[in-house]
Amino acid sequence: MPTSTQDADQLRVGVVGAHGNVGREICAAVRAADGMRLVAEVDQGVPMQDLVDNGAQIIVDFTHPDVVMDNLAFCIDRGIHCVVGTTGFTDERLATLTERLGSKPDVGVLVAPNFAIGAVLMMRFAEMAAKFYESTEIIELHHPGKADAPSGTATRTARMIGAARQDAGLDAMPDATSTQLDGARGAEVDGVRVHAVRLRGLVAHQEVIFGTEGETLTVRHDSMSRTSFVPGVLLGVRNIAAHPGLTVGIEPLMGLD
Amino acid sequence: MPTSTQDADQLRVGVVGAHGNVGREICAAVRAADGMRLVAEVDQGVPMQDLVDNGAQIIVDFTHPDVVMDNLAFCIDRGIHCVVGTTGFTDERLATLTERLGSKPDVGVLVAPNFAIGAVLMMRFAEMAAKFYESTEIIELHHPGKADAPSGTATRTARMIGAARQDAGLDAMPDATSTQLDGARGAEVDGVRVHAVRLRGLVAHQEVIFGTEGETLTVRHDSMSRTSFVPGVLLGVRNIAAHPGLTVGIEPLMGLD
Amino acid sequence: MPTSTQDADQLRVGVVGAHGNVGREICAAVRAADGMRLVAEVDQGVPMQDLVDNGAQIIVDFTHPDVVMDNLAFCIDRGIHCVVGTTGFTDERLATLTERLGSKPDVGVLVAPNFAIGAVLMMRFAEMAAKFYESTEIIELHHPGKADAPSGTATRTARMIGAARQDAGLDAMPDATSTQLDGARGAEVDGVRVHAVRLRGLVAHQEVIFGTEGETLTVRHDSMSRTSFVPGVLLGVRNIAAHPGLTVGIEPLMGLD
Amino acid sequence: MPTSTQDADQLRVGVVGAHGNVGREICAAVRAADGMRLVAEVDQGVPMQDLVDNGAQIIVDFTHPDVVMDNLAFCIDRGIHCVVGTTGFTDERLATLTERLGSKPDVGVLVAPNFAIGAVLMMRFAEMAAKFYESTEIIELHHPGKADAPSGTATRTARMIGAARQDAGLDAMPDATSTQLDGARGAEVDGVRVHAVRLRGLVAHQEVIFGTEGETLTVRHDSMSRTSFVPGVLLGVRNIAAHPGLTVGIEPLMGLD
Repeated sequence: MPTSTQDADQLRVGVVGAHGNVGREICAAVRAADGMRLVAEVDQGVPMQDLVDNGAQIIVDFTHPDVVMDNLAFCIDRGIHCVVGTTGFTDERLATLTERLGSKPDVGVLVAPNFAIGAVLMMRFAEMAAKFYESTEIIELHHPGKADAPSGTATRTARMIGAARQDAGLDAMPDATSTQLDGARGAEVDGVRVHAVRLRGLVAHQEVIFGTEGETLTVRHDSMSRTSFVPGVLLGVRNIAAHPGLTVGIEPLMGLD
Repeated sequence: MPTSTQDADQLRVGVVGAHGNVGREICAAVRAADGMRLVAEVDQGVPMQDLVDNGAQIIVDFTHPDVVMDNLAFCIDRGIHCVVGTTGFTDERLATLTERLGSKPDVGVLVAPNFAIGAVLMMRFAEMAAKFYESTEIIELHHPGKADAPSGTATRTARMIGAARQDAGLDAMPDATSTQLDGARGAEVDGVRVHAVRLRGLVAHQEVIFGTEGETLTVRHDSMSRTSFVPGVLLGVRNIAAHPGLTVGIEPLMGLD
Repeated sequence: MPTSTQDADQLRVGVVGAHGNVGREICAAVRAADGMRLVAEVDQGVPMQDLVDNGAQIIVDFTHPDVVMDNLAFCIDRGIHCVVGTTGFTDERLATLTERLGSKPDVGVLVAPNFAIGAVLMMRFAEMAAKFYESTEIIELHHPGKADAPSGTATRTARMIGAARQDAGLDAMPDATSTQLDGARGAEVDGVRVHAVRLRGLVAHQEVIFGTEGETLTVRHDSMSRTSFVPGVLLGVRNIAAHPGLTVGIEPLMGLD
Repeated sequence: MPTSTQDADQLRVGVVGAHGNVGREICAAVRAADGMRLVAEVDQGVPMQDLVDNGAQIIVDFTHPDVVMDNLAFCIDRGIHCVVGTTGFTDERLATLTERLGSKPDVGVLVAPNFAIGAVLMMRFAEMAAKFYESTEIIELHHPGKADAPSGTATRTARMIGAARQDAGLDAMPDATSTQLDGARGAEVDGVRVHAVRLRGLVAHQEVIFGTEGETLTVRHDSMSRTSFVPGVLLGVRNIAAHPGLTVGIEPLMGLD
């Protein structure tokens, strides 16, 4: 029976929170992806037991902080790997997961605050380049409905650059500004200037610019749609079984750590 | 005599302040340009009379506020057109020039604060586009030796955009920012946010970004070297004779007014 | 009755082809826009007569070449203005519309191949800048599902630049390339090099770069979503009544001609 | 004697080919840099022996293929480290150097084809990002006096991306182009499309764009002036003593290998 043979090569994936906006996108992406098969769609009215009944090997959970810990306990105990984009993971919650995984040494759980592969690479490249450049500034650009400025990703990038500069013993960046309109030079995060643009039509974008004598290097990430988390989630699904225990952030699954 | 015939087609150009940094660049550019010939290089030790003796039809003056008015009086009285990049032109000085030109109706004098053709086009395009977009922000990027932030060009661009938005009756730009690090959203000039980046390796750059639903439009000007005033000066030399009287800014000679 | 007073200030808009993908976006946009009201949604099962019964003053038609001429005849005869994004308008069809409008001198019909305001501005700016620059090249970037390379917009932009250069008597662009990998320097359209990038994740983007000594000017348009036609359609709805007769392209309604 | 104490902390640097264009830039850069001192300027009329007489610990050699091997033999034999930007290093020449260094195990020689730190980082980042993206294309942009298209750096980057994609087992990039103007889709190098722009006003620039569902990542390097090799040369001077033996390319001194 050819179908069975084919199935044997395919990862059996369940989606928890399958009826939400993000869940629906993930279900569609799993259905369309090579090498995996959507076997369960859990949400209100569809119990977690469906994952077991349909032989799910891996779940993707984009649900709610109130329910995610119970979902993960259920899966870990049954040997199901977990790829988790739900928010609200405190150090305490991560410790609870690590403890639970102690009795299931083969199970992998990935908890990631950001599944956008490009954002992760941008931050890594920024960290690597920082020490070679006298000057570095960050421009992040988002839709005008965003509440915080600068973005969390920009702040995190600035901190990584600041730390890399400090490790390398770099001086403060050159800046002869003596007359300034309030705010013109942006916000300062760990010695790195960050500028936040808010513009109708944009989604989520960030540019990190490095400068030294006679040259600049720019790393830019553009999220064009709300589905930019999809490639990172699929990467998690494909690789989590090979990373038993708790993994925080997709970097290790990308081979970056 | 072929040389004379050839010369008859060529504009005879004198450079005043020919030994300064800018003056030397202009001399080199006039020598290299088609359709014109460098006939006099006035500076300390070389009198203005050289312009007359060598039949200069047009001068380029990048000198000093202390001497420029005398230079221009000398040239106007002798029917020599003037292309002027020297700074310090107050309304009073411009009025003095207009008066002097009254008795020489064929003479043209161009006084321009900015000869970079691209900067002029960028401002014009910004002014034209402004009314069609809900959001507009400006990012200017310069070398770290610059004293003022934002740049004069950025401030002027913001004012032009602000005026165009007001003429069109546009509302304030959308911006849901509620949590902000000081300076993150840039400086505000006439309702337009302006961000100033200072980075080793840069020269002088500016980007104006317009956004509306589903699309953005960007106009960017990059000055890569100190010689970016050259094309504008040559444009002035070629066209000033056809623009008698006083002209402020190269826009009219570019056909933009 | 306050509602009536309010209504009196609002344009009464009908959408023809209201149930298609584009039609639904337009209905949503009209509902959300200030100063207009959606009064009829015509599609299969909803007759054109609904426009009359509900007092539509203007229609938006994104339907099909097979039906659009009948739709427009119906509206013109009843004094309803038309904003049309349907394709397939030959010179013959445009002549037919002009003739029909002859007997209804107050009615305005806008037929536009491209409602993206930014694309129209980009082309206009390219046309204006071309004569000031020795070099101009075009880079267009689209999703990888696009069948033609370069895009129609890029080809049209190149032709406009080529014509502007010819009018200004510019020489061929400088290019010392003597060793070339096949295709490296792009396609040539009227003397202008055009490069087509195809990349997953992109939507529709174009950059026109102008260069002269020491400086470059770049005009870039980014369509981030399929809804980038919306602002242009709303601009058409707001202005068509003031432009009686046939108008081709949104430029005149943008005050660009 | 404070001067001696200060000197003891400073690297004593000699420049060979000190009177050429590049040599003069390097002399100026060594003079201006912290932690090093220019002690000898060798060129026609100034013998290599000056290096020894002035206690040079490290030389920088941007000379000519005809003389560089003799220069390096002289320095290696006297225990002087070498940072070399001269061209023409064949495998045979590199083998000769390795052999000579065998008897001087403490001496370091760096031979690098490209000292632009940003170009090296761009290639490294491109190599790291390639496997995560369905699509990657390269746009390189240079002044119009360049003879080859695409540039050597672009070709090398494309090869690195092609190899990384092959290692990761990626399929060919998606591309539905069915109607194409000759050259529009660029040149193909190891499955990667490369586009070469030639524009007056540019110096040397390259952009690598990666795309996957809903997002793109861009790495861009801009060389704004001929001095962009300076930071890489200074990095070589500072680090070569800690890298005995032959090093090809600055990557190992940047900690990238």
